[in-house]
Amino acid sequence: MPTDDFIVTPWHVEGEIDYDKLIKQFGTEKISKQLLQRIEKITGESHFMLRRGIFFSHRDLGRILDDYEKGKKFFLYTGRGPSGHTHIGHLVPWVFAKWLQEKFDVNMYFQLTDDEKFYAKQNMTLEETRLFANENALDFIALGFKPENTKIIIDTKNIKTLYPIAAQVAKKINFSNTKAVFGFTNETNAGMIFYTALQSAPCFLEDKPVLIPLGVDQDPHFRITRDVAPKIGKIKPALIHNIMIPSLEGPGGKMSASEETTTIYTTDSPEVVKKKVNKYAFSGGQPDIEEHRKKGGNPDIDVSYQYLRIFFEPDDSKLKKIYDDYKSGKMLSGELKAILIEKINQFLKVHQEKREKARDKLDKYLLED
Amino acid sequence: MPTDDFIVTPWHVEGEIDYDKLIKQFGTEKISKQLLQRIEKITGESHFMLRRGIFFSHRDLGRILDDYEKGKKFFLYTGRGPSGHTHIGHLVPWVFAKWLQEKFDVNMYFQLTDDEKFYAKQNMTLEETRLFANENALDFIALGFKPENTKIIIDTKNIKTLYPIAAQVAKKINFSNTKAVFGFTNETNAGMIFYTALQSAPCFLEDKPVLIPLGVDQDPHFRITRDVAPKIGKIKPALIHNIMIPSLEGPGGKMSASEETTTIYTTDSPEVVKKKVNKYAFSGGQPDIEEHRKKGGNPDIDVSYQYLRIFFEPDDSKLKKIYDDYKSGKMLSGELKAILIEKINQFLKVHQEKREKARDKLDKYLLED
Repeated sequence: MPTDDFIVTPWHVEGEIDYDKLIKQFGTEKISKQLLQRIEKITGESHFMLRRGIFFSHRDLGRILDDYEKGKKFFLYTGRGPSGHTHIGHLVPWVFAKWLQEKFDVNMYFQLTDDEKFYAKQNMTLEETRLFANENALDFIALGFKPENTKIIIDTKNIKTLYPIAAQVAKKINFSNTKAVFGFTNETNAGMIFYTALQSAPCFLEDKPVLIPLGVDQDPHFRITRDVAPKIGKIKPALIHNIMIPSLEGPGGKMSASEETTTIYTTDSPEVVKKKVNKYAFSGGQPDIEEHRKKGGNPDIDVSYQYLRIFFEPDDSKLKKIYDDYKSGKMLSGELKAILIEKINQFLKVHQEKREKARDKLDKYLLED
Repeated sequence: MPTDDFIVTPWHVEGEIDYDKLIKQFGTEKISKQLLQRIEKITGESHFMLRRGIFFSHRDLGRILDDYEKGKKFFLYTGRGPSGHTHIGHLVPWVFAKWLQEKFDVNMYFQLTDDEKFYAKQNMTLEETRLFANENALDFIALGFKPENTKIIIDTKNIKTLYPIAAQVAKKINFSNTKAVFGFTNETNAGMIFYTALQSAPCFLEDKPVLIPLGVDQDPHFRITRDVAPKIGKIKPALIHNIMIPSLEGPGGKMSASEETTTIYTTDSPEVVKKKVNKYAFSGGQPDIEEHRKKGGNPDIDVSYQYLRIFFEPDDSKLKKIYDDYKSGKMLSGELKAILIEKINQFLKVHQEKREKARDKLDKYLLED
């Protein structure tokens, strides 16, 4: 366990994360300017999540690009632990994965780990996590993925495909490894100990290199996969990590799908969004208007601003204006919140329509064993 | 780990087993005379494996009989780890299970744990264990089970049915439990740690009590299942245990499918059987004929006699005559071996024919997910 002031594991994120420290702690690489330029050159476009450092770290992304430039394609894989409804933080790696898929014209696998959440959550049944898996799949499909090159995996549904691959991995992982990587103890349940092998399995579904866009808290799973891959004659997965999306109540933790009051769900109504942002969104503003006008606000710790930066305002010049106006005191916290509320509700209006339409299309996306 | 001179775990049996001590160590119950009489009363028959103590121990067998007499049926479940061809020791619980099935008119599930043997054997691939699973299934079918009430489970093939049940069990087992029950260490692989949950799964395939005839070395798995069952709202499995079948080279270990020279396979030719018995079967006889005639042999340690007692001579009076003749010195070791060789080859002639016919029928027995 780290001696720092923060903890990042797949099941627990706590404290204010120092991402430079985390890169050292996890042993990943920062996305350099050169690498950014290289991606822009290949894709012909600069994605705001890259240039703003929302995706900040990687493993072997250079190798993926080397191969790609030699004509060797990769495939994409990401996923979600279905412990509740999707919240807007979950959409970050999915939207970015969508962009990667379009730019590189590659296949995509999306894993819904209903078993993992059953193992990890004392009070959840497998029926509940399976239900949320179906609900979460609708959000994923709503982002515009095509069934021709995108397959959704649900662990308990696709276990026949996953298990023989997971077994190869599980044979090469011992309890010590899971202790070292996840901090497991003698009291950790046998499902959790085995589970990481199932999260590894989709890396080897195609005989090609895989690139995984994901929240950095999921990196430990793939540290194990990368250790095991050469031992079973496979290529190590490459990763590109996004930062943790703060909860409404502010930095120090990722947005959790289990906390109603600190999370905006993709299923929230405009009224609920308005209420949540106004009531709970941590503000970088001053205690009263007079002081705010004088001293200005702090956008760097203001959650509404951060949500705009991370997801809802892709236009750099518009974002800069908001930053400057808020910092100078020209823009009040309530005004900043109003901008975010409108952006979220604009997005959710379209998203929720697509999400409902996805119900009838779900079957086309589900991986066949 | 026991402080006794013997070790009995699902993956390692060593030393000369004191079965009374083992009953205490495992916490099972000896099959009492009263219980034997009760079974005879219900079935109308005394099975030689019961009256000779080949099946010597149980858990909750009385409860199964109580329920049965009240009209509540149970189902049977046993299995095999497919690490090689079937040897004659494996047939003991299967033949007994067949008898139970006929007498009680109940369903039977037979689990082939190809994943377990892959996890447990450093050098075996999943393809190899799956191949042996198919081969072992032929031996099982050859014993006369009917596809109407008998289903064969192959773990990797039926994982979609097994995994959701195993997950319920795995959530209730922690690493400490597996350490205590199996002697696992920090170096034990994650597949092995999870696996016991998959061996538990068939216990809950039907909403009825289950009775499991099995080698006593497999008891630790079901000790875990029995602890977990009430926690997931299920009935504890009942067990009936057979002794370990000695290897050709004598007591101190069970017959192992991995040791060519100490094992008789169901696929062996008459010549091979003859050679193996004559060359390797541990003899209770004296060093030379003169001494043997004078002092007599010791059938209690003679492997050929033991094989007749355990499996190949169901007729008590014939067996007693062999015992007395060998003990008195009237029968020589070579003569005793000749009796066994003939018995085995008679059995295998019929068995091998049925085994080949089973190839075309295999599909009818395989559990559909």
